[in-house]
Parts: sequence; C-alpha cells; structure tokens
Amino acid sequence: MQEETGDMDRPVEPGHFSASEARLDKHIAGLCIVDFPVAVVLPAGGSGERTGLLTPKQFCTFLNRPLISYTIQTFERVPWIQSIVVVVAKESLDLMMDIIHRFHHRKVLVVHGGSTRHRSIFNGVRALSEGEDGTARVKPKVVIIHDAVRPFVEEDFLHKITMAAKEQGAAGAIRPLVSTVIATTLEGYLDHSLERTKYRASEMPQGFIYDVIYQAYQRCSESDFEFGTECLHLALQYCGTNAKLIEGPPTLWKVTYKRDLAAAESIVKETLSRSACVITGGSAQATELANALQRSMGALDMEVDVISDLIGDNAKSLSKEWNFIQVSVNNSCLSEVGKTLSALEVADRALLHPVVIIWVDLNVSEDDSSASEAMGGEPAAMMEIATGAKLGNILVYGIQLHHSKEATLWGRSVERVAQMSCALIRDRSPALTGQLLQA
Amino acid sequence: MQEETGDMDRPVEPGHFSASEARLDKHIAGLCIVDFPVAVVLPAGGSGERTGLLTPKQFCTFLNRPLISYTIQTFERVPWIQSIVVVVAKESLDLMMDIIHRFHHRKVLVVHGGSTRHRSIFNGVRALSEGEDGTARVKPKVVIIHDAVRPFVEEDFLHKITMAAKEQGAAGAIRPLVSTVIATTLEGYLDHSLERTKYRASEMPQGFIYDVIYQAYQRCSESDFEFGTECLHLALQYCGTNAKLIEGPPTLWKVTYKRDLAAAESIVKETLSRSACVITGGSAQATELANALQRSMGALDMEVDVISDLIGDNAKSLSKEWNFIQVSVNNSCLSEVGKTLSALEVADRALLHPVVIIWVDLNVSEDDSSASEAMGGEPAAMMEIATGAKLGNILVYGIQLHHSKEATLWGRSVERVAQMSCALIRDRSPALTGQLLQA
Repeated sequence: MQEETGDMDRPVEPGHFSASEARLDKHIAGLCIVDFPVAVVLPAGGSGERTGLLTPKQFCTFLNRPLISYTIQTFERVPWIQSIVVVVAKESLDLMMDIIHRFHHRKVLVVHGGSTRHRSIFNGVRALSEGEDGTARVKPKVVIIHDAVRPFVEEDFLHKITMAAKEQGAAGAIRPLVSTVIATTLEGYLDHSLERTKYRASEMPQGFIYDVIYQAYQRCSESDFEFGTECLHLALQYCGTNAKLIEGPPTLWKVTYKRDLAAAESIVKETLSRSACVITGGSAQATELANALQRSMGALDMEVDVISDLIGDNAKSLSKEWNFIQVSVNNSCLSEVGKTLSALEVADRALLHPVVIIWVDLNVSEDDSSASEAMGGEPAAMMEIATGAKLGNILVYGIQLHHSKEATLWGRSVERVAQMSCALIRDRSPALTGQLLQA
Repeated sequence: MQEETGDMDRPVEPGHFSASEARLDKHIAGLCIVDFPVAVVLPAGGSGERTGLLTPKQFCTFLNRPLISYTIQTFERVPWIQSIVVVVAKESLDLMMDIIHRFHHRKVLVVHGGSTRHRSIFNGVRALSEGEDGTARVKPKVVIIHDAVRPFVEEDFLHKITMAAKEQGAAGAIRPLVSTVIATTLEGYLDHSLERTKYRASEMPQGFIYDVIYQAYQRCSESDFEFGTECLHLALQYCGTNAKLIEGPPTLWKVTYKRDLAAAESIVKETLSRSACVITGGSAQATELANALQRSMGALDMEVDVISDLIGDNAKSLSKEWNFIQVSVNNSCLSEVGKTLSALEVADRALLHPVVIIWVDLNVSEDDSSASEAMGGEPAAMMEIATGAKLGNILVYGIQLHHSKEATLWGRSVERVAQMSCALIRDRSPALTGQLLQA
C-alpha cells in the first residue's frame, strides 16, 4: 500500500533550465560561492536491460540527443564544476567521443570502465589525480558521483551535496520510500514490513572529499568491488567517514524503463515549450495578429513575447527563446524566415535543442477567395527551406491565414493559429516540417 | 547507488492490450478459468499532490480520457471479474458518475470514501456484501484491491494474485527494490543500509478471500485505520492469514508524478500506434501505393495491413484497428473518408481511444503541375469533415501527393507519406486535424 502524502511542497518538475533561476537566488543570498575545485564522476557503463531497448539507456536518444549528453550539460552549466569524468565500457568509447564532439562538450574526460560499477567509479576517481601515463594531476577537493541516467539534477542541490561533503567528508541524496518495504520468508511469504518513517531510499548524487573516496577504494576488499552497492558505506567502513544525508527533490529520479525515456522527453519538451517569440516585422496588421496570438496562446499556457525584429536589444531573444513565430503580411516570399534562420545559425542556437520557427503568412487582400489559391510556388520553396533548416536542428512549419473583416471568422482563424502553433511547438515533429497549414 | 541488473527477462512495457494475448495463451493452457466470483476495490480518493497538478491524478486526462477510466477498463476487460467498486471522495462523486456514463463503464459501483485510505477500502469491501440500505448482497469469494493510478496491470497477473488469494487467504504483488534502502540516525546521518536481497517493495494489486479482509477490518483498531499502511498486515495480525507474495512485472508501476502521466500517455499512444490499415478502394494505382507504404512504414516499425474496402470479412478491421489510411485516386470528393467515418461511428470504435483516419489523395493526372493547384474547395470540405469527426473522437488528416513517373521523385514522395503518416498516428494531435499536407 502506498502513502498519499509527502513532498507536496516540492516543485514537481522544476524542469531542466531552472538551474539558472536557482543560481540567481543563491548568488543573491551569497550561498553558491564554491571556492574550491569540484569534479564529477559519471559511471555510464550500464547495459540498460531494463529499458527493453538494445541501446544502453544512457545512449538512448530523444529530440536528436542521447540522454547522457543532457546529463553532461546539467553539470557543464554549473560554473564551479571544473571537470566531468565519464566512465564508459570499452565498446562505447567511440560513441562517447562522437557525442562529446557533436554537442561541443568541453569539460569532459572519458575513461574506461572496470568489470563492476565500483571498479568503474574508482577508475573515474583515479583519473582525477593521475593521467593514463601515471603523471600527477591537480586533484579536486570534492568529487561528486552521479548517474548518467539522472539528467535533471539541479545546481542548488549539487551545491548542498558539495558543501555537506566538504564539511562532513561524505554526503548523499535520499528520498522518501515510494512503496512499503517488506521482508519475505524463504518460502515467499510476508515476514514483516519496515516502519517507513525510519528508512529512506538512497539516491544519487553523492559527494566526497577526494581523499576520502580515493582511500576507501584503495583499502576496500575484492568482495566490496564485486558486490558492494553503496559508496557511502565504503567511506564509513574504510575511512570512518559518516555521510550526511540530504533529502533531494523528485527530479533526482533515474531513467530505468522505456517509459522513463518518454517521461524525460516530455520534461524537456515542456521546458522548451513554455514561451514563444512573435516577430512582426513592424506592420500594423502583423502586430494586431501578434497581440491576438499573445492572448490566445497565453490561455493555452504559453507565454508570448512580441517583438518587431531581431535587431539591437531584441537580438537577446535569439539566446533565450526556443520558439519563433514569424508573421509576414501579403508576402509570398520567405525572406523573413530566411533571416531568422540565419540569425539562429549564427547564434549556434540549435546545437543542444531543436528550435521551432513557425511562419505565419497573413493574407489581407480585399478579395475573400480561399487563401490556398494564392499559394503558387510557396509549398515547394517552403519545403526546400525547411529541409535545409532541419539539417541544422531547426524545425520550420508554415501556417497561412486570410484576414477576414468578419470578427467571428477572424477570431476563429486566430484561435486556430494559436492552437496549431502550440501543438507544433509542443510536439516538435520533424516529419511535419515544411508543411503549409491552413488556419 | 543502484543495481544495474534484475528483471531483464521481463517484458518492459507489454502494453495495454496484451491482456488479450495473455488470455489466449492461458485459455489454451487451461489456466485462466476462474470458477468463483471475484470483485475489485479501487480506492480513488487521493488528492494527487505529488503530480503538481490541481486535479487529483486519477482524474487527470490524456487522450481525452481520465486515468481512472483506463484502470477501470483494464478490469472490465477481464471476463471473470464481476464487479468493480470505486471509492471516491464526496466532492468527486459527480465527476466519477460522469466518467462512468461517458465511457460506458458497466461493472462499476461507486461508493463514498472514508477519512483515511483504510476506511475507504473498508467502505468498498463492505459495499460488496451489503447495500447502502443494509440489504445483503451476494459477496464475492475473492476481492482484489488495487490502486486507481496503476492502469497497466495485466490479466495473467490478476489471475495469479486471485488464485493465490483463494488458496492462501491473501496474496500481494512485490517488486525488487529500485534503490538501496538505508536507515538514518536522528541527526540525519547514515546508520546502516539493508541487504537488498532480503527485502522487496510491496505493490498493488493484493487479493484476499472476502471474509478474511472483511474480518480484518472489523477487528482492527482505530490506530490501524488511521496509520496502517498494509492490508496484508491486517490480514496477518487479525486473521492469522499469511500472505503469499508474487513478483509482478514493471507494468504494475504507479502514476505518482506529473512525468508519470506523460509516461502513461506514451504507453497508450505506442500501443495504439503499432499498426495501421490501408484501404485502397481496389484500384491498381492505390494498391501500388499501399504496398509501397507497407514497406516504408514497416521500416518505421509500423505494421501495415492492406485491404480494398471495409465490407464482408474486411469489416473485422473496424473492431481491431486504431488507424486507417484511406487512399483515393484522382478523386477530389471526400466520400470514401465519409464512408469509413460512418462505419467507425456505427462500430462505436472511438469511445475509449481516439481513432486516426489519414486520407491520402493520389493525383495521377498527366500534367505534372503542382498538386496544390488541383485543390479547389477541398481544404474547406476537409476541415468541415474533420471538425465533425473530432467531436466523435476520430482524428482526420489529409495528405496529397502527385504521382510522378520519375522513380526517384516518386520514391521520395512515398517515403514522405510514410513518415508523415507514422508521425500523425503517433502524435495523435487534435490541433492538426483537417489539414491537407503535401508529400
């Protein structure tokens, strides 16, 4: 039986990018200053049987990027983390190097794994103080050990673990138990159940003073290397270091099953789909439409910013926005979309996440004939531009609408543009790029 | 630290409808005969704080249907389960009655919850033997207790729990522990960790001989009603019934966080998107396209069945297929789509899950002009038909393609139709219905 209470005061999915907000808060409070070197070890040698997929789960891809790259990015964003050692199985080395190259990861060192999880972690820890040729490296003060398949850990929690590790020698994340834990008899019957309040689930990340975890591994037995499950225990047993336990948020959750990959994808998509930026080009009609979209999309929980162009101060949208709606009026050429595309390419915006551009083609001509008649050669041009953009991880869609003087009809069209834009942004479907939809 | 092994031999997400396959196997083996009455109690009074949503999680909706309806459907499909008692908080009663009405649930009895989970379950158990006015009802032999928020339990596992409960008096699902369980000191330090092999997570469903669970609740203390977490324990403590524990598949998993709703939706979508049926109308050109789609969509992991119409033996597709691709050749009217729509409405096919119809409009005219020029009044007619269909939970999309004599061009068009069809089927986006896409 499951408890219905607990952690209700926690953010459920604070999302992937809230670290920057957290950082801001802490900087104001002066808490996030870490004045000693910190490194991370990410064991990533698991074979991922439980996902039911052939690919180990850390290398499973969503939105064009493998899970492990999301986890690496989480640590790379944190300014006070100096380096990240990823420990992979020999057969995954080339794949890992390719991922690092493709997504421009800069703080990463890759080392070979051992035959068990503990041996792999020790290889990672050792690589922080000595090079492959035995040369000494400047070791960090604190090392954080995390799982490659927990991509959503946040900076403020990493900070807590790091500071507690520095103070106590070791620290680890815990979570309330989700299920009642029971002891079974040898014959498969209920023996007793544990009092849930006294126990916790041990999770990742864990942090250690470098010398503590290094010595623990140097001193521990073959049996520990083979069967041990808790780094915290090795620190206690071999260095007398008693770990501080800190309750973490639900976002520490680990991608274990195939369904968890879908959940991870949905979290990233949701985070990318919170807002959009409408570029009007400055005309009155486009601005009117943009303002109407701002209201309609706001009602669909998407915040919309309206700007006239991407020049000057407006250029900052290029570095913070994942979704652009480019409005053009009576303009059958796609030059505005081309401009936005180039600006995004120059800003290297779509390296880590696909960016969406929706071209809204507003036809305000007097004659009320179907908008589709005015299309001419646009579908082909649109498809061509979208095909090129997709290679650079930018998803381009089109929506055509005819301006109606009849308020009800016009309202309905705007509503449809809003609904379709929200759907295109949230689904981020590569197969539908280049299409010209009708509002 | 987490173990990387375990349950690799299990189906990961056998999906939502595999119960029927399991049933077939078991019927052959003669195992699934249950010759005594079985009922289910579904406590559904939780407030769902952990999802981070205002709606309690059992009432959260995906693909147009609340989670609890999926769970009810899971039990309604099982022929040997006679009745399902859903226990809801007073304030959710109207909502629950509306759900039962809307989705034609027929085996369900709704009762009021109590102030704690155990009181709610007891209310549900009691309702199986006496009416609200105190009149006696024919009580079941075995009662299964499950969570409203575990929608994917399968018939063969329910059968195991039921048979073990009948034999032993009580039975419960267990799962291996996902995390190491640790005991903490009062000061928040590591005390010790449990040896993982000796412990299990207690999950749902649990099964009881009716008299056992009824008596356990009659005898138990106020404190048990208030704080107890395990029905299995009450059976042991008050009736001396020692529960048989059975390891269940990962699909027993419980929707707890918002991300779990996304995972549940993805499981249902995946199950609905395994296959599609192409209706050709019988023409040679349509059949050629259908065969090409069968190959291309097969390469995208979607099984495609090709039929000429929905008449006679082919009508069985109406009761087993969730996705239809209707090909028409040189035919600007949408009458075939209208026929398929009517047939689906008569079959009441879209009551529980949205059905997809993709109209593929193949233009084989000699002149090689853009397909869009031939569109005429179609976009409006298409939108109208799709708007009506959506009210009945049927999602209609259109794809136009021009037959090219140039093999490379033609191959590329077919590939695009296949990709777009798979994307439309998998995304099931209501906002994009009525659109005519270009291949």
